[in-house]
Amino acid sequence: MNACIITIGDELLQGFTRDTNSEWISKHLLDYDVHTEYKVTIPDDRPKIIQTLKRAISDQYDFIFITGGLGPTHDDVTRNALKLFFEVSTVFDQDHHEKLVEWCHQRNIIPPLNLESQSTILSGSTSIPNPVGSALGMSIKYDGSQIFILPGVPAEMVGMMQETILPKFFLKSDFSRFITLKTVGKGESKISEEISDIIHDFETDVKIAFLPQYTGVNIRIKRISKRVGIAHTVANLIQKRLKGLIYTNEDHALEEVVGKMLRLNKLTLSVAESCTGGWLSKRLTDAPGSSDYFLGSVIAYHNNIKKSVLEIPDTILEQYGAVSEQTAKLMAESICKITGSSIGISTTGISGPTGGTLKKPVGLVFIGLAYDGQVFASKFNFLKNRTLHREMSCTTALNMLRLLLLENFSNTF
Amino acid sequence: MNACIITIGDELLQGFTRDTNSEWISKHLLDYDVHTEYKVTIPDDRPKIIQTLKRAISDQYDFIFITGGLGPTHDDVTRNALKLFFEVSTVFDQDHHEKLVEWCHQRNIIPPLNLESQSTILSGSTSIPNPVGSALGMSIKYDGSQIFILPGVPAEMVGMMQETILPKFFLKSDFSRFITLKTVGKGESKISEEISDIIHDFETDVKIAFLPQYTGVNIRIKRISKRVGIAHTVANLIQKRLKGLIYTNEDHALEEVVGKMLRLNKLTLSVAESCTGGWLSKRLTDAPGSSDYFLGSVIAYHNNIKKSVLEIPDTILEQYGAVSEQTAKLMAESICKITGSSIGISTTGISGPTGGTLKKPVGLVFIGLAYDGQVFASKFNFLKNRTLHREMSCTTALNMLRLLLLENFSNTF
Repeated sequence: MNACIITIGDELLQGFTRDTNSEWISKHLLDYDVHTEYKVTIPDDRPKIIQTLKRAISDQYDFIFITGGLGPTHDDVTRNALKLFFEVSTVFDQDHHEKLVEWCHQRNIIPPLNLESQSTILSGSTSIPNPVGSALGMSIKYDGSQIFILPGVPAEMVGMMQETILPKFFLKSDFSRFITLKTVGKGESKISEEISDIIHDFETDVKIAFLPQYTGVNIRIKRISKRVGIAHTVANLIQKRLKGLIYTNEDHALEEVVGKMLRLNKLTLSVAESCTGGWLSKRLTDAPGSSDYFLGSVIAYHNNIKKSVLEIPDTILEQYGAVSEQTAKLMAESICKITGSSIGISTTGISGPTGGTLKKPVGLVFIGLAYDGQVFASKFNFLKNRTLHREMSCTTALNMLRLLLLENFSNTF
Repeated sequence: MNACIITIGDELLQGFTRDTNSEWISKHLLDYDVHTEYKVTIPDDRPKIIQTLKRAISDQYDFIFITGGLGPTHDDVTRNALKLFFEVSTVFDQDHHEKLVEWCHQRNIIPPLNLESQSTILSGSTSIPNPVGSALGMSIKYDGSQIFILPGVPAEMVGMMQETILPKFFLKSDFSRFITLKTVGKGESKISEEISDIIHDFETDVKIAFLPQYTGVNIRIKRISKRVGIAHTVANLIQKRLKGLIYTNEDHALEEVVGKMLRLNKLTLSVAESCTGGWLSKRLTDAPGSSDYFLGSVIAYHNNIKKSVLEIPDTILEQYGAVSEQTAKLMAESICKITGSSIGISTTGISGPTGGTLKKPVGLVFIGLAYDGQVFASKFNFLKNRTLHREMSCTTALNMLRLLLLENFSNTF
């Protein structure tokens, strides 16, 4: 089964208001094995609404979701456009209207002039109650498509989906057709090469997609045949092949996975950051409950802080420089000592745009890791883009930590 | 002038990967007076790509942006679909290819098998350099529409837009029809009340929109009459009325504005963070050149770090608690002393989801500010959502710093 989502609203086309509705709907439809194959955003414009719906119906989607433009103000034109399209009259829900008027009275609000529209639905449609707002939703069967017409306010749309549409119109499938494996440490093309035989062997059963981000590649496995469970079989094969490259087969962030490993092994962590400027600590503390293992950090942006707080000797900074393996190692060791944590991690690099030299160009970074009396640091040359350099440094630091834990603790995934 | 944006990618239709590309493009096109009127997301599917482009061309948009599906793997089918649609052959850019191979060699990476595709463009198209990735972009004029074909990786798309497409293909109206005033510290309805007479007086000349975000409200002024310059006149009136509420009339982030003020006055800053866990330092160091004024931070997530590194006395933590005005003030003073900075700023709060009590609920935060021998702290109750609480705490801290600087230095905006 497939679906098309039409979101309506001028504000969604200006880049300032995010269309979270289509995200929510498509994500939740997957649980019912319904795949969104088309998402379109159009202005509050009658001809455009009619043209877009006409196209969607001719494309024969099983389900069409329309959100937005059902409110009481002058720019909410969806109801009228659909009335024209379906060539139907409207029905007024007197009960619903009285409830709205009563609601206004209770709050000493004068009912707005055009409140009637909120209780008006298309003839031949089934009304969908709105648990958190005023406008009624609608459902209509037309030319083989089941069409849902919902308000644009996210909470109202979600309320209608959860309380009426999903339980009433959809059947939950007990075996998901999708599995996502999240990887870090290798590029998209390398990974696809390493599993090319698996892709080939199962090409009639699953479709494998690579979703590259700068911080890692997600491998998405989608069952396309009737072999229930085949997506899991293929996922297991890929996991065995790629081993440590995959950090989760669930919807977890890298920092959550690392956090879970630390918690499980009753380890604590502290951070000494230079170029990443707090981002690594921020990511670690994004995870709820991170206070179980994360103790704290020193952001030693200026060299004086490296000297005074982290006690990196002048001689090291002069001989090797702040961006060096030696400094990275000392930073990791020092933060361990200062906080008493079991593991210390450090970053020192040149994120740019300025500050690079021939020998130490923008993009260079050293990441240090201290654990159990040992310390090491690795050198990387990332992109010369400040934001990406910082982001990749954080991700790589988290991944080095993950690999260290994998190596030392057999109870981690 | 209007535009249509076609984003391609299975992952964008499953609700897990956000389509930030269309947001970015539509937002930035507004500066060139180009309005996005259609946004559509489709799968990596050849017939669908062809059908969608055909429709967009028949709808006669001035500009059509296509992003996604130019990568080197098997599911990147955009280039091929467009080749079929335009009925053209391809051109191989040998120079670009050699650069990519060289790049791989320098990093001891074996060039992936399908690297050639990254240097292949459609005949008749103009190639668009990719400053941060491998795939070339393309521009093609067809049936009255200027079509841009860009990679789906946001940083690559942005790089191409900023370095080539916007400066080369678009004319910035030298007297922009749009002005955006960015505010922080008050809600949408309060602000609209305060300037309601200005909105009314100029309603035939400008349309004023409020774009609320959790971290502040942007006021967007759009000229709708032929009175060139009227948007600036209205912007000036609003700026005079709202004074310190507006932090910029340009596209600057709050941390950049604060950074500029610090640099101008040769001041230095350091940070002591608890609940924000590094995010405030991260935001400060997002700004290039922040090493001019930002010295460093201590992230005292665990109370032991508050005691040992920031030297907050046991008695204070026991009597008032870690989340208190007293602790916030001592943290700000202490980080000043440790780093020798002219200004110190601190955060301590309960971001949740757990850790709240009746007296100190989730959402509570104290922000401290030490400067010139003086120190104060303010108390806030923000949302009970962990991410939003942390984000609002950071923004409020930056704004308190901005207001302190405004008060003490007449040369700041």
